[in-house]
Amino acid sequence: MASQKPKIAFLGLGAMGFGMATNLVKLSHPVTGFDVWAPTLQRFSAAGGTPSTTPRECVRDAPYVVFMVATAAQIMSALFEGEDAAVKELKQGASLMLCSTGPPEYVPLIQKKLKELGRGDVLVVDAPVSGGTIRAANGTLSIFAAGEEKALKAADPILKDMAGNNLWIIPGGHGAGTNVKMVHQVLAGIHIVMTSEAMGFVAKLGLPSKSAFEALKASEGSSWMFENRTPHMLVEDKTVYSALNIIVKDVGIVTAGGRSAHFPLFLSSAAEQVLASSVSAGLGLVDDANLVGLYLPQDPTAVLKLASSAESLSIEKLKLVEKAMAGVHLAAAAEAMCLGAKVGLDSKTMFAIISTAAGASKMFVEKAPMWLSGEWTSGKTIDDVVAELTEAIEEANKLKYPLNLAGTALQLFQLASLKGFGKDPDVAIARIWDGPKGPLFPRKSS
Amino acid sequence: MASQKPKIAFLGLGAMGFGMATNLVKLSHPVTGFDVWAPTLQRFSAAGGTPSTTPRECVRDAPYVVFMVATAAQIMSALFEGEDAAVKELKQGASLMLCSTGPPEYVPLIQKKLKELGRGDVLVVDAPVSGGTIRAANGTLSIFAAGEEKALKAADPILKDMAGNNLWIIPGGHGAGTNVKMVHQVLAGIHIVMTSEAMGFVAKLGLPSKSAFEALKASEGSSWMFENRTPHMLVEDKTVYSALNIIVKDVGIVTAGGRSAHFPLFLSSAAEQVLASSVSAGLGLVDDANLVGLYLPQDPTAVLKLASSAESLSIEKLKLVEKAMAGVHLAAAAEAMCLGAKVGLDSKTMFAIISTAAGASKMFVEKAPMWLSGEWTSGKTIDDVVAELTEAIEEANKLKYPLNLAGTALQLFQLASLKGFGKDPDVAIARIWDGPKGPLFPRKSS
Repeated sequence: MASQKPKIAFLGLGAMGFGMATNLVKLSHPVTGFDVWAPTLQRFSAAGGTPSTTPRECVRDAPYVVFMVATAAQIMSALFEGEDAAVKELKQGASLMLCSTGPPEYVPLIQKKLKELGRGDVLVVDAPVSGGTIRAANGTLSIFAAGEEKALKAADPILKDMAGNNLWIIPGGHGAGTNVKMVHQVLAGIHIVMTSEAMGFVAKLGLPSKSAFEALKASEGSSWMFENRTPHMLVEDKTVYSALNIIVKDVGIVTAGGRSAHFPLFLSSAAEQVLASSVSAGLGLVDDANLVGLYLPQDPTAVLKLASSAESLSIEKLKLVEKAMAGVHLAAAAEAMCLGAKVGLDSKTMFAIISTAAGASKMFVEKAPMWLSGEWTSGKTIDDVVAELTEAIEEANKLKYPLNLAGTALQLFQLASLKGFGKDPDVAIARIWDGPKGPLFPRKSS
Repeated sequence: MASQKPKIAFLGLGAMGFGMATNLVKLSHPVTGFDVWAPTLQRFSAAGGTPSTTPRECVRDAPYVVFMVATAAQIMSALFEGEDAAVKELKQGASLMLCSTGPPEYVPLIQKKLKELGRGDVLVVDAPVSGGTIRAANGTLSIFAAGEEKALKAADPILKDMAGNNLWIIPGGHGAGTNVKMVHQVLAGIHIVMTSEAMGFVAKLGLPSKSAFEALKASEGSSWMFENRTPHMLVEDKTVYSALNIIVKDVGIVTAGGRSAHFPLFLSSAAEQVLASSVSAGLGLVDDANLVGLYLPQDPTAVLKLASSAESLSIEKLKLVEKAMAGVHLAAAAEAMCLGAKVGLDSKTMFAIISTAAGASKMFVEKAPMWLSGEWTSGKTIDDVVAELTEAIEEANKLKYPLNLAGTALQLFQLASLKGFGKDPDVAIARIWDGPKGPLFPRKSS
């Protein structure tokens, strides 16, 4: 029984791409897959896909082409470079979905280049994704799609096959989807680093790591990334769910975006430096949960060892970790929402997207609505957060444990206090990013 | 021929204390020395001092008592704790000089405790020092002396024996000397970390490290610490000139002071986290020039190896390092001067002290006078510095080299730009610390 569904070419069968492509196979699409890593092609064949060894061969006769390679540079190469380039065989009117995460300027560049080559017929959708390997494999990824209406309409059925109800159409044309992803990665990047900073702190405090994780997961310090990554630290598991180099690249796109927008991103920058240290230390290709080892250089597997600890959990010490996490996540939420507003994204859409995606945190979900409504109903003040972060920092100082992100967050809250917002609700942290034209998120006068 | 000079008790014969005490011996004082480390006492004896094995024995019959132990806690212990405590044998009307670096509140606490014990006769001078081991040994240390006039007068000859022309009398009573030292250590701490960050960057860029050092030393990126510490990296030398733990403690006092003053210290905090990482990595007891190894985890001696490199020096690459240093040092100068103003120190005195001490940098000496005069005559703008730091950061990102301090500095300059100071002279960076009452260092309208 031949499939009635249209053919899809899928380029880039990494941890995310493999799940996305095999999901399309399961939905009865004929899928031709390309990857430079031969063993992956064999696995893809075993999963019912058709392997191909060049981009050109891969896209032949395919009305839909999905790019999920690691970088924008790899898309450029697969699409345009040499005799095996995909552009040489792209079907007339083919619909391209660019799902890799790249800098905001790369999608318009690809459209331009296609036109220069006389392939203005090709439809291009800026379609970065988020959600991790499990949602990739079951077709429920968050996809932030932007482009011309005709292109969006053409790609719609395939985007829905990959995203289900998590398909977001972002107004603003090419680059807008990538901007959403960039703002999302502000949070993803900070939260991944904070997960290691927090669990390293747990270990340095001598807490049983498994029960600490369970308690923190239920606390106001939790985040999607914390829940997702920490389990990898608690068991002996060398699987690379997401290579550290991926988030390094994404945070690099974030800070480059901050520089382009002339916008300070203190926590993203601090996260970037921690990540650079980890790559320097040789961790680029391992799972990003291994970042915790950088925080515990003399005992990189301490979190794993303490997973079987029979110690009872000191709630007092655990509170220090929770406060560090909550303070960082609140400042990160402000950093992300302010950057989004600065680059012209609709804040309500940003909130709706992030709050259900991998960039979510308890703090983000609780506090970001206050920026949107202007109703600042937090029970805590800026100075309360200063006091909480101070407790965490002072304990870490005693232990000579580095709190790179929490230390940065404390300076931000102290700056807000210095500016006269100390007695204001904690969400006044966003006012650090006030420009000469006033606040990005003004408070409603009550 | 018996000495006619009065007896001095000297407690704490570490790298600094040993030089200070033997300098007093050379000036013909009878000096009794105490230290917990027996080999040091033997060396002290060989140098003409009289060793003693308890604080109590050390201070017997001495009209002058100098404390140069590592921490305020060690002073408290040597002075007050147990049967061997110095307080049990302090001479009537003895003059105490507290030269260790401690938190601002500890000197008043010691005076109070002496009074409670009925020893209100003892005179106490808050007298922290700066300048390194060479100046310690030749009696030209910078000393920041504060206290009651009677106490200052009594201690004056001995303070002059230790400081020569570098004795500073700081108004404000006990704690004021320590505050000066704290502000000085903002710069010392940042510059020590930046020295390693810069030389690690030199190595990562593959530059010949010795000629890079010579060129940077002559550039606007230089600092006293850079000139002083880098030579230790360029030769095989395991001597501990200043243990990393010392600057860790000092920076801890700085950030605690920032928290007490509710004042954000972004660069000091970033430096503190780098230093905490180095202690975690086991570097606490080695010379602080070894911090460069933390920046080069896969080749900690790269700077040493490249000292004999025959490569020619790429001026273009060197400029990146220079720009990173200059940007960090300018922001550090602002952070220090603003903290000094915030804690009530006289800014002109602060400038005079720091510009001739170990906290000096080319940037500090060039730019700080503009804050004092209000005449902002820099040729560069805030946005110029943003552009320079951006170049450095983007190159470091490509190399996955962490620029912890330069990354932080870039965010500060971007924040200043966001606040509307982008086209102002670069010294407008100080306006980040504007409070609700306006700028700490206003610009004179021209």
